[in-house]
Amino acid sequence: MSFTAPDSDQLPRTLNDYYSRARAGMSPRNRAYFLAGAGDGQTASANETAFQQAEVTPRMLRDLRGGSTEVSLLGQKLVAPFLIAPFAYHRLLHDAGESATARAAEAQSIKMVLSAQSSEPLDRVRSSGPGSDWFQLHWLGSREATQALAQMALDAGFTRLILTIDAPVQGVRDREIEAQFQLPPDVSAVNLARFTPPAFTSREDAQSIIFDHIAETLPTWADIAWLIETLEAPLLLKGVLHPEDAAQAQRIGAAGVIVSNHGGRVLDRAPSTLSALPAIVAKVGPDYPVLMDGGIRRGVDILIALALGAKAVLIGRPIACGLAVAGDLGVSHVLRLLRDELEIAMLLSGCATVQDIERDMVHLKL
Amino acid sequence: MSFTAPDSDQLPRTLNDYYSRARAGMSPRNRAYFLAGAGDGQTASANETAFQQAEVTPRMLRDLRGGSTEVSLLGQKLVAPFLIAPFAYHRLLHDAGESATARAAEAQSIKMVLSAQSSEPLDRVRSSGPGSDWFQLHWLGSREATQALAQMALDAGFTRLILTIDAPVQGVRDREIEAQFQLPPDVSAVNLARFTPPAFTSREDAQSIIFDHIAETLPTWADIAWLIETLEAPLLLKGVLHPEDAAQAQRIGAAGVIVSNHGGRVLDRAPSTLSALPAIVAKVGPDYPVLMDGGIRRGVDILIALALGAKAVLIGRPIACGLAVAGDLGVSHVLRLLRDELEIAMLLSGCATVQDIERDMVHLKL
Amino acid sequence: MSFTAPDSDQLPRTLNDYYSRARAGMSPRNRAYFLAGAGDGQTASANETAFQQAEVTPRMLRDLRGGSTEVSLLGQKLVAPFLIAPFAYHRLLHDAGESATARAAEAQSIKMVLSAQSSEPLDRVRSSGPGSDWFQLHWLGSREATQALAQMALDAGFTRLILTIDAPVQGVRDREIEAQFQLPPDVSAVNLARFTPPAFTSREDAQSIIFDHIAETLPTWADIAWLIETLEAPLLLKGVLHPEDAAQAQRIGAAGVIVSNHGGRVLDRAPSTLSALPAIVAKVGPDYPVLMDGGIRRGVDILIALALGAKAVLIGRPIACGLAVAGDLGVSHVLRLLRDELEIAMLLSGCATVQDIERDMVHLKL
Amino acid sequence: MSFTAPDSDQLPRTLNDYYSRARAGMSPRNRAYFLAGAGDGQTASANETAFQQAEVTPRMLRDLRGGSTEVSLLGQKLVAPFLIAPFAYHRLLHDAGESATARAAEAQSIKMVLSAQSSEPLDRVRSSGPGSDWFQLHWLGSREATQALAQMALDAGFTRLILTIDAPVQGVRDREIEAQFQLPPDVSAVNLARFTPPAFTSREDAQSIIFDHIAETLPTWADIAWLIETLEAPLLLKGVLHPEDAAQAQRIGAAGVIVSNHGGRVLDRAPSTLSALPAIVAKVGPDYPVLMDGGIRRGVDILIALALGAKAVLIGRPIACGLAVAGDLGVSHVLRLLRDELEIAMLLSGCATVQDIERDMVHLKL
Ligand SMILES: Cc1cc2nc3c(=O)[nH]c(=O)nc-3n(C[C@H](O)[C@H](O)[C@H](O)COP(=O)(O)O)c2cc1C
Ligand SMILES: Cc1cc2nc3c(=O)[nH]c(=O)nc-3n(C[C@H](O)[C@H](O)[C@H](O)COP(=O)(O)O)c2cc1C
Ligand SMILES: Cc1cc2nc3c(=O)[nH]c(=O)nc-3n(C[C@H](O)[C@H](O)[C@H](O)COP(=O)(O)O)c2cc1C
Ligand SMILES: Cc1cc2nc3c(=O)[nH]c(=O)nc-3n(C[C@H](O)[C@H](O)[C@H](O)COP(=O)(O)O)c2cc1C
Repeated sequence: MSFTAPDSDQLPRTLNDYYSRARAGMSPRNRAYFLAGAGDGQTASANETAFQQAEVTPRMLRDLRGGSTEVSLLGQKLVAPFLIAPFAYHRLLHDAGESATARAAEAQSIKMVLSAQSSEPLDRVRSSGPGSDWFQLHWLGSREATQALAQMALDAGFTRLILTIDAPVQGVRDREIEAQFQLPPDVSAVNLARFTPPAFTSREDAQSIIFDHIAETLPTWADIAWLIETLEAPLLLKGVLHPEDAAQAQRIGAAGVIVSNHGGRVLDRAPSTLSALPAIVAKVGPDYPVLMDGGIRRGVDILIALALGAKAVLIGRPIACGLAVAGDLGVSHVLRLLRDELEIAMLLSGCATVQDIERDMVHLKL
Repeated sequence: MSFTAPDSDQLPRTLNDYYSRARAGMSPRNRAYFLAGAGDGQTASANETAFQQAEVTPRMLRDLRGGSTEVSLLGQKLVAPFLIAPFAYHRLLHDAGESATARAAEAQSIKMVLSAQSSEPLDRVRSSGPGSDWFQLHWLGSREATQALAQMALDAGFTRLILTIDAPVQGVRDREIEAQFQLPPDVSAVNLARFTPPAFTSREDAQSIIFDHIAETLPTWADIAWLIETLEAPLLLKGVLHPEDAAQAQRIGAAGVIVSNHGGRVLDRAPSTLSALPAIVAKVGPDYPVLMDGGIRRGVDILIALALGAKAVLIGRPIACGLAVAGDLGVSHVLRLLRDELEIAMLLSGCATVQDIERDMVHLKL
Repeated sequence: MSFTAPDSDQLPRTLNDYYSRARAGMSPRNRAYFLAGAGDGQTASANETAFQQAEVTPRMLRDLRGGSTEVSLLGQKLVAPFLIAPFAYHRLLHDAGESATARAAEAQSIKMVLSAQSSEPLDRVRSSGPGSDWFQLHWLGSREATQALAQMALDAGFTRLILTIDAPVQGVRDREIEAQFQLPPDVSAVNLARFTPPAFTSREDAQSIIFDHIAETLPTWADIAWLIETLEAPLLLKGVLHPEDAAQAQRIGAAGVIVSNHGGRVLDRAPSTLSALPAIVAKVGPDYPVLMDGGIRRGVDILIALALGAKAVLIGRPIACGLAVAGDLGVSHVLRLLRDELEIAMLLSGCATVQDIERDMVHLKL
Repeated sequence: MSFTAPDSDQLPRTLNDYYSRARAGMSPRNRAYFLAGAGDGQTASANETAFQQAEVTPRMLRDLRGGSTEVSLLGQKLVAPFLIAPFAYHRLLHDAGESATARAAEAQSIKMVLSAQSSEPLDRVRSSGPGSDWFQLHWLGSREATQALAQMALDAGFTRLILTIDAPVQGVRDREIEAQFQLPPDVSAVNLARFTPPAFTSREDAQSIIFDHIAETLPTWADIAWLIETLEAPLLLKGVLHPEDAAQAQRIGAAGVIVSNHGGRVLDRAPSTLSALPAIVAKVGPDYPVLMDGGIRRGVDILIALALGAKAVLIGRPIACGLAVAGDLGVSHVLRLLRDELEIAMLLSGCATVQDIERDMVHLKL
């Protein structure tokens, strides 16, 4: 594998360095799109704060030989309990787009979840990173269209599907509006081109775009149950914050849920994901696959999320920062730093394996 | 309806943009009068902070078709559960004064509550916005004078009355004193001109302007009970923070109460209205009309207030900011943005109607 | 009564304006001495923060006619429930020193407590403000000396005595040390000149100035009990923070206690006085005279302290600021503003008299 | 004893002055190494914040004659309940290195704990400060090597041993990485030169440096039990945060434990030591020697730690600051200031002896 420049002497040396260099180097529009949250950014920053305020009480002098960060998840073996979160339009950050990210994921044996809003064709991304066989879809306005998208992904070799359910509309994106964010002509959701956006039924008495038009195109639990039955691959639901919704997902046969608030990009004032996690795990039981994302910026954050019951986590903006700063090399380095930090956190807190990370090691201050 | 300039390209694009442009563009005196709170501004900012710290846990995949923000209140149908709060002297902000605000309200089918301290004649405002038939009065020193004011409003076509009871004196207005705020010669409470201010009984042994003079002119519960009996329109009491006072309002036949601290302009150190709301709703029961105001800056804040039991809310400073930045067009835009944000918040949190907004969706951090 | 300049047009208009002008105008040394706290200033600022975080829930539409701020305390009638706290060396702030302060107190019918470390002779101060008949003494190293000081005060016409017990040493006064604070040659504790400072017994094995020398000169409860028995005037103990110490004061016949941490000037990390007050009142019962001081900056703060059980409060730095900015006129103005604010706070919260200020109006956030 | 310059007129006058001058005067690399914490520095600053938020309720009018700060610990008499914490490479801060620190400790009759990573030879340090007979060792990869190090210390006249168990790896030292910290050629851990670093067994299937190599070289409880049995001097374990680990230390015969998170330099997100202390003391009982360190910056902090059950405390960075600013004179002055402040805090809070410092004097806000 050969990575693109820059000269590795020039690479950031720490995760925070990636984050601050990316922030400094991005155009105002990209900064608004990739780094800001919806509304006042309360939820986006609450995600991070929840981790920063969590306390980890370490244990000493345990036997740590032969430990590892390995986990198995939905029948797959992961070298570490984290994946790259699906996020749109990598080509806004780097010409090589999702392929660069996939290549880096491959190099670090980490899986990337490819967004339906990928700015590169499915196949190219798949071949750049064959190990990354997770695909994230969203509802395309009808059962048929959504199923077709899922099928397209399965045909391309993806084996695990995530359906994002928390973003029927974009949320109040003040930062993007202020920055007048829009996609440049050469970046688009190329894999969705073939799907026509849902046409709104014209209604005489329509008062509200939201409730009279958009709402017509949204799925309900029944639609998702149908989709799960129809598909031949495991489907996880991403964007759950309420224990009842997690229980409902479990009942209809979802392969798991992802506790997420979409990185604080949708409903500002939603709770931080870390604070929402424990009640959800309590509801669905310790064996049901609950993943989470939002606000993870360091290896120790992964340990914290696992202590509170997540089976694995997804990482969004840190990867975007790596990609922005140094393309595939940057992503690879960020992944490596996260894993190194996780190993260090496990060693320092007395956990040889992910199974050793226990609930009572972590105290949340909320 | 034709709105005055500026060119709509120049309009702010977000609510926060309205607020910061208004703050930047106001004269120091207007800033002190319209934006500051009494004392150290603790209560004024606590109002906002309470909303910012509230958490909304959204629900997913519910059927949202045909939803709406509509509510019915005191026999009226409102397109959305908010009104423009009564505030004095719109002409300080814009030449077209309360008429501009009424015009914008009309355009958005939102009701404005007209302040007794309107800087434009009742009739002119009424004809600019016929849909706005709510009037706010305050005690004028005697039963007769106050009744006469109410009657004047009813004669002008107002049908719902609010009596503000929380501001017998102004509070400690340090910001206004520092800015040497005073009304310019061409702005005054024109509708009150005909009422002579209460003359103080001269008392030999008077020690305190407050307790020996002003207190003589203030109403008690008995006076309000009399007024309610006398009037032929529903009267709500504005400025209630204690559950016992809400219960008393209910007992004497007030049509409802408005949980308010006057935007933090009167007693600094009073609790935030959002924190005071739940105990009041618990006291008077779910059917009694409890409204609230103070600190609402975004659509999601309206959802939060409704979850905690308000039937509707009043919006003050955001409207003043819209008026200051772009006259009727600005107010109209602010109203629209608030409603759009509310619809988005409802959609994202899984509520098709206002009735779906439930208590346990919101967690207050106090 | 004729007050010294400046032209009253130039006077600050608000309390905060006094505080900030005083801060800006003081020499660094005076700023360190008068405004800073001991150590890191945590306790000094906690005193203020406790008030700022207290919430007052107002009641509406009560009959407030003929109310007043009057209280009676230790057989005296006070026009308002506050006194000027004893503080040393007024002449550092203004040439006219304690006489100016006493004159202002007289003008406002408020009592000043004269500090034993007055920089002006007792008699001159007494004649400048005959209504101020409270004197604060501290332990002078022996029963005899302390009694003699008390007697000197009684002979000068003082009728109420306060013994300050919380400052056996100065505390860690970093700000003063950094500013190299020292008394100028023309300012001293003139009334203490005749008392020789306690001579340290020379001890062979002495290791510690604190425990082997200073501690020899300090009083114990037995000494204070003796003093109370000996004196013919009521003696209050100032500087109590623990309920047990308040109970002990009550047992030995002290006329009352003053909950105080010396304005945060002695033991940094001591609790705020407002937070300490309720447990002390609960311990000694509602009838025993408990006063308090520390952090009161506004009229509403006085209402808050009274709601929590104080019979009256003492005001320190605000008076020093008034004196620094405008001599007797400044002190007089500050006293008036405090009283006006208290009246407004009482009116707005529905309290006609000090007896109406009830415990459950105030909610402390600690 | 003759101390090196600077002219004592130029010395800082307060502890905070030492800290800020040291911070300002250090090279960026030294600042990163000595003052920063691991990760985001959360734990390092939580250590300090915990003390700043602790409240001490003082008692008045107790008999304080003949008091002292003396304690006895592990059969030794200490003039005050604090020691200098072991820290590496004093020569980075001052040419005279650990000898200067030892000399200052001797002058103040305080004990220094010498770090195994001393940048000066054991013997030279011992002869500079014969009263300092505590030595801190860490695990050297095998029982034999570690025992040999301990024996080397005992042979040099050290009588009390501390084994640091919380730093098997360095932690995520972002600040050091950013500052590109490295030891200059003339500074090294001279006393460890003779010990070869543990060679990693080469393993075919090794995936992780941490778990496959480093973990092989780390001790377990069994190793420590062996070491304690083997050694003829008392051994304390430093770096305990969990009550169970403290209990385990007690069971295997450790002479005591030191509640420490290594000054926040290892696992960022570990709890503050002050917050961890009470549960540990509760677990091992009041008689077992529990020491603590981390975040102590003032004399009153020592009183706080003792109230919560520590028998003595260790002081790290304040000493480093003294050394950086003024060599032996600086350390001596810092030690003196700490002790003076402790005496003042004891006097002001009514404690004549360390035994009088009671649990309920201190209220933690966590
Ligand atoms: C710029 C951006 C674009 C995103 N696009 C998608 C997307 O297309 N599909 C999706 O399910 N989530 C999307 N997300 C949400 C992420 O999958 C993930 O939930 C979130 O980034 C996690 O929070 P973090 O960024 O704090 O790690 C996006 C997030 C960001 C920041
Ligand atoms: C400048 C200004 C003037 C006001 N004048 C009145 C008034 O005349 N009558 C009244 O009942 N309330 C008045 N209010 C209070 C508002 O009705 C309302 O309670 C408050 O503004 C709500 O808080 P918000 O500004 O945070 O939305 C005024 C508020 C402001 C800011
Ligand atoms: C500069 C200064 C000097 C003081 N001198 C004395 C004194 O001589 N005797 C005394 O009992 N208290 C003294 N105090 C404490 C005050 O009586 C009072 O407890 C404190 O100022 C109250 O807090 P406040 O300043 O926040 O109102 C002094 C306070 C200050 C600020
Ligand atoms: C620069 C530095 C080097 C340190 N080196 C060691 C060491 O060699 N061995 C050890 O046990 N602890 C070491 N420590 C930790 C200290 O012994 C102690 O736990 C910590 O400094 C206490 O926190 P404080 O600095 O806030 O007082 C070091 C600390 C610092 C700041």
